[in-house]
Amino acid sequence: MSLREDGPSVAIVGVTGAVGQEFLSVLSDRDFPYRSLKLLASKRSAGKSLTFEGRDHTVEELTENSFENVDIALFSAGGSISKKFGPIAVEKGSVVVDNSSAFRMDEKIPLVIPEVNPEAMKHIKLKSGKGALIANPNCSTIICLMAATPLHRHAKVIRMVVSTYQAASGAGAAAMEELEQQTREVLEGKEPTCKIFKLQYAFNLFSHNAPILSNGYNEEEMKLLKETRKIWNDMNIKVTATCIRVPVMRAHAESVNLQFENPLDEDTAREILSNAPGLVVIDDRAANHFPTPLAVSNKDDVAVGRIRRDVSQDGNYGLDIFVCGDQIRKGAALNAVQIAEKLF
Amino acid sequence: MSLREDGPSVAIVGVTGAVGQEFLSVLSDRDFPYRSLKLLASKRSAGKSLTFEGRDHTVEELTENSFENVDIALFSAGGSISKKFGPIAVEKGSVVVDNSSAFRMDEKIPLVIPEVNPEAMKHIKLKSGKGALIANPNCSTIICLMAATPLHRHAKVIRMVVSTYQAASGAGAAAMEELEQQTREVLEGKEPTCKIFKLQYAFNLFSHNAPILSNGYNEEEMKLLKETRKIWNDMNIKVTATCIRVPVMRAHAESVNLQFENPLDEDTAREILSNAPGLVVIDDRAANHFPTPLAVSNKDDVAVGRIRRDVSQDGNYGLDIFVCGDQIRKGAALNAVQIAEKLF
Repeated sequence: MSLREDGPSVAIVGVTGAVGQEFLSVLSDRDFPYRSLKLLASKRSAGKSLTFEGRDHTVEELTENSFENVDIALFSAGGSISKKFGPIAVEKGSVVVDNSSAFRMDEKIPLVIPEVNPEAMKHIKLKSGKGALIANPNCSTIICLMAATPLHRHAKVIRMVVSTYQAASGAGAAAMEELEQQTREVLEGKEPTCKIFKLQYAFNLFSHNAPILSNGYNEEEMKLLKETRKIWNDMNIKVTATCIRVPVMRAHAESVNLQFENPLDEDTAREILSNAPGLVVIDDRAANHFPTPLAVSNKDDVAVGRIRRDVSQDGNYGLDIFVCGDQIRKGAALNAVQIAEKLF
Repeated sequence: MSLREDGPSVAIVGVTGAVGQEFLSVLSDRDFPYRSLKLLASKRSAGKSLTFEGRDHTVEELTENSFENVDIALFSAGGSISKKFGPIAVEKGSVVVDNSSAFRMDEKIPLVIPEVNPEAMKHIKLKSGKGALIANPNCSTIICLMAATPLHRHAKVIRMVVSTYQAASGAGAAAMEELEQQTREVLEGKEPTCKIFKLQYAFNLFSHNAPILSNGYNEEEMKLLKETRKIWNDMNIKVTATCIRVPVMRAHAESVNLQFENPLDEDTAREILSNAPGLVVIDDRAANHFPTPLAVSNKDDVAVGRIRRDVSQDGNYGLDIFVCGDQIRKGAALNAVQIAEKLF
């Protein structure tokens, strides 16, 4: 980050969590301009000292008075904290970029991937005296749409069938620790300790732990449908998703089957994806070299590969792709910081 | 196994491999009747002693003379061994159940899942003096079709979109050891040793290592299309698949999206699946209890769950399901032994 008088004053809510920590890392990597930085967390973490870019910062307790003179507040402390403190920050004139699901489906609140729909937030201005909320989409949606949107713009997606391979990080730092601890235990022949997840995670996989709705989908799966419709501003888009947690640390993978209204051949698709911002094509068939979660971990770009004409659809109206993206970075912290950058 | 004068004489080709060992385990569990047992492997393993059901057996070298008086030969020693020795065994009058891909797409050779298409092998008789070949389908196909076939019979599947989560075992015992060793290395902060796979497997996943064809699909994916068409005897079935290797030991999972010609509601589907042989429904939404690879490991039954109407298709013409099955057992050894049982 670079200290600049004309930069915004920044607050991070939930700074001690996995995404909160990544906010700091991304702000630093991108040399984000700022006037002041306030690190907020629960009472439990208040008083802790965090060294960031050579300076010591004391974590403050999040209270109703935390947002005086805060221009941008990056929230990642769970839905209930966002619901309570998001509107308080807005009232103080802050622009809140919220990583929780609390406001995503609120019609009045933009849901933004900066490469996809920056126009949704064009009415929001920093330091205008008017606070505002902007929602960060769910990680699976961001990673999927980073690759699907450029194709959608060209040939109009009418239906997507998505199967996810989701990392531990989506359930927070404690879930990553649990995966590591369980793996050690299994290798030592011990019974694995299950705290965050009720099932063994080491060398196993399971249906995403989000609550199941009456239609049989879990909330994670329905987010892919609802958020895609909102972000693409098209209520006719059809999406079905199966979300699975796999024993990988911090990057999600998604197998995406696309059906188009207009024809789109494989070579054109590859060219479109090669030119898309924030996306890297890894699609070397001869070398069997394609995206993996490990290769995109700690990286900004989402990777796409296995680009091929869907043999189960007639003509050039279908494609299969495989997408990987860092869940904590583009799936959460990076996307939020990019939103903040667009505002400045 | 039970020694019976009227039982067939059995040979196992590739007995020292992961599937070969499982052949023994399945034959024992199912109390398979036999007159004699011959354990065959490469020269390297010949002379080894294997204790099976309390008796010592000496592994013999596989040669052109191995099949004298062999009624059933269970092959799992790779495609080139099958291509060379399968026809030799047939010439000696043996019925060969082959686990490799060598003969699967040969029009004259039945490709059989006993619960699905036993009629394809009804012309083959043991001890008839006429040898024959029967091919065991690929593991991913068997596991998928165990759940898809009962639904297909009821409502006619016209298209399937499959994404797989495939275990190490599909690449053999050495791959399972590599996953375990790499995981230890990563946890110790060491560079993981990559021998079987060129990519890090521990805490990672990657596109299946089968060769990629000119249409961009890998051979594993095309097997799901071609074998389904042959087994269901319907060249109009449409299938697209994305096959991914995940860091799980010995059971595959598959996310399967189905499109039907005739309507099929979710409750009827669940009832059909509950009554299907070799299949167990695990579909408790309230408890978030669904199939996992670990729960089906070392089990005979394939498990199906996450049964729900596909919200991306109109009416009751689509379903999503999630299937798990032990790759070494129903995906290979068990299916082959069940074929042998049908013959007896």
